[in-house]
Amino acid sequence: LRSRLPHVGTTIFTEMSQLAAEQGAVNLGQGFPDFACDPKLIGLVDEAMRAGHNQYPVMTGVPALRAAIAAKIAALYGRSYDANSEITVTSGASQAIQTAILSSVHPGDEVIVIEPAYDCYAPAIALSGGVVAPVAMRVGSEGYSVPWDAVAAAVTPRTRMIVVNSPHNPTGSILRAADLDALAAIVEGTDILILSDEVYEHMVFDGQRHESLSRHPRLAERAFVISSFGKTYHVTGWKVGYVAAPAAMMVEFRKVHQYNVFTVNTPMQHGIAAYMADPAPYLGLPAFYQAKRDLFRAGLAGSRFELLPADGTYFQCVRYGAISDLPEAQFAKWLTREAKVAAIPVSAFYGQPTESGVVRFCFAKKDETLHKALETLSQL
Amino acid sequence: LRSRLPHVGTTIFTEMSQLAAEQGAVNLGQGFPDFACDPKLIGLVDEAMRAGHNQYPVMTGVPALRAAIAAKIAALYGRSYDANSEITVTSGASQAIQTAILSSVHPGDEVIVIEPAYDCYAPAIALSGGVVAPVAMRVGSEGYSVPWDAVAAAVTPRTRMIVVNSPHNPTGSILRAADLDALAAIVEGTDILILSDEVYEHMVFDGQRHESLSRHPRLAERAFVISSFGKTYHVTGWKVGYVAAPAAMMVEFRKVHQYNVFTVNTPMQHGIAAYMADPAPYLGLPAFYQAKRDLFRAGLAGSRFELLPADGTYFQCVRYGAISDLPEAQFAKWLTREAKVAAIPVSAFYGQPTESGVVRFCFAKKDETLHKALETLSQL
Ligand SMILES: CSCCC(=O)C(=O)O
Ligand SMILES: CSCCC(=O)C(=O)O
Repeated sequence: LRSRLPHVGTTIFTEMSQLAAEQGAVNLGQGFPDFACDPKLIGLVDEAMRAGHNQYPVMTGVPALRAAIAAKIAALYGRSYDANSEITVTSGASQAIQTAILSSVHPGDEVIVIEPAYDCYAPAIALSGGVVAPVAMRVGSEGYSVPWDAVAAAVTPRTRMIVVNSPHNPTGSILRAADLDALAAIVEGTDILILSDEVYEHMVFDGQRHESLSRHPRLAERAFVISSFGKTYHVTGWKVGYVAAPAAMMVEFRKVHQYNVFTVNTPMQHGIAAYMADPAPYLGLPAFYQAKRDLFRAGLAGSRFELLPADGTYFQCVRYGAISDLPEAQFAKWLTREAKVAAIPVSAFYGQPTESGVVRFCFAKKDETLHKALETLSQL
Repeated sequence: LRSRLPHVGTTIFTEMSQLAAEQGAVNLGQGFPDFACDPKLIGLVDEAMRAGHNQYPVMTGVPALRAAIAAKIAALYGRSYDANSEITVTSGASQAIQTAILSSVHPGDEVIVIEPAYDCYAPAIALSGGVVAPVAMRVGSEGYSVPWDAVAAAVTPRTRMIVVNSPHNPTGSILRAADLDALAAIVEGTDILILSDEVYEHMVFDGQRHESLSRHPRLAERAFVISSFGKTYHVTGWKVGYVAAPAAMMVEFRKVHQYNVFTVNTPMQHGIAAYMADPAPYLGLPAFYQAKRDLFRAGLAGSRFELLPADGTYFQCVRYGAISDLPEAQFAKWLTREAKVAAIPVSAFYGQPTESGVVRFCFAKKDETLHKALETLSQL
């Protein structure tokens, strides 16, 4: 057996969740809520099943859901995607990302990935026969930011795509309007596509706004904008996401999509479509998660952890240099075993070994779970 | 935009279902039931959601479901797959097929595909950088069969995989024990892998048995055996399937799987796991579909359609030469528009234009739906 992905092991999320379970640790590693979703949403899925929505939906997604997604994007970000030709429902954001890459990256193409980066981009690029061109984020006292000059310098005639992600996993940083303008200047006059992973779009704090690429006409015209309901509705296990893109890009996306999953769970699509009629659940999300972020940060304020800024997502990155000089992966394991709190080493988000003495905690947890973790973390 | 799949359009299933809807035709094209699934199954999914099973399951699938799948395979086919290392739950069979191919076919590798063939193999092979080596089935008065001499002749040093599918879509033919032995003789001493698409495993008629590759030790040791609950439980829209394979192959499969969909809908997995405790639903499937097949065949017996044998699947292939000399795709459209019954042209299952004067009907429909279609079909 010759591996297609020789450098890939089991994802860090699986590894740390397993260790957390073995150790009986509080799992602030893998990102998922430990609280229940809205029972109303469950009722709507149940209704859809009982109404007989259990066979293949159309390949592109249940029409009512595509319409609801287009309406939401138009309302929040001011871009009108055509629900028929420019929106496709996917089996979560992961599938959307892999399918977008497989449908547009050719062997030998280069894809610029800004690191630290979520771990699913690079394997999809490798399967396409493409090559990752990594650009490291800058990290200072104001946290992580994208060095656009370095991105511009990484562009070559072979560059096919640039991957951006805001709100950003793992760092919790966000792109601002000036970032989008800088990116637009880089791609102007080229045929470079953009993949914009926006699964944490509804988790931006302190009154800041989410700069969706769909807001920015010169970027939106060449972007796959990807999001997911798993994070937004506290149902990470339902695996319903979507991609919005100009029709010509969507034609290529769907060619791959129709042979990858073909379609996405029908009753879940109907349930979510009905649930989207009320915007309150996602409009309330910034306040909901900001309170958890603030609780978590307050709990670590007097500790030896150094808190990095957290403008978005449900992750909090911390420097632990005052506590340990272990490399990140070992520190994360030590923390899980000794302090009984699992975290994710940020080094896992780099293609090449990169140590910055930072680990990531997920605060999408019940307050009592956060309090329990803080009891030990604050004493280290 | 340069396409990764320049020769691919919209799938024939989408195309014919759209036309059927436009024309108000009875849709015997795309394969899916028009009757309800067991309400008990819906209740079990609902229970799982209310019990809070809504977050990421483990990447490989809910343990209870993997255990139930392993137990079923052991009971029916006598092979013991290890539920932890040799079974993975997938987003339907389509994703299992694409992931299996992406994880094991390298650029330049050849994959033998026996045609007519379901339309998702070739695009996955193309995305891998592999090349399809097609072998045409033999078709005579006894229906379709695999010419193993031609398969053997198609093997080259670059052959990486052979795709088999039994019960076979679209022809309704099945592989028998002698076929498996012939295949085993071909691959013996090579490192050729096998992808066995067995999604219609529970639809084999007239007392014949399904020859799963998992029955055959010399094949199972190199095979991805793929099935799906969509067909078995009348829920094609739920998108839950699985792959069973030796651990070393599964390691590679999971490397791709974890970045493709990462995981599969959690409450559906729990519901199906509980539902599998009773084997009656799948053990009763041959009789259930044999009755529909017999009804449909009886209805066409006196007509100008020539019925081909139908040993398995929920498809019936017919020759229409006595009715029309249109090419298959045009005949299928004519039938949809004029007779108001949609069918699938078998020519769509070939890589190169191949006309054999055969279309496929799906009989997974309420008896009343079949009667309605037969009213016109029997008069043509
Ligand atoms: C898909 S498992 C990982 C969940 C997640 O998005 C994260 O922890 O970063
Ligand atoms: C995935 S849509 C096609 C359904 C099917 O398996 C068929 O009609 O052959």
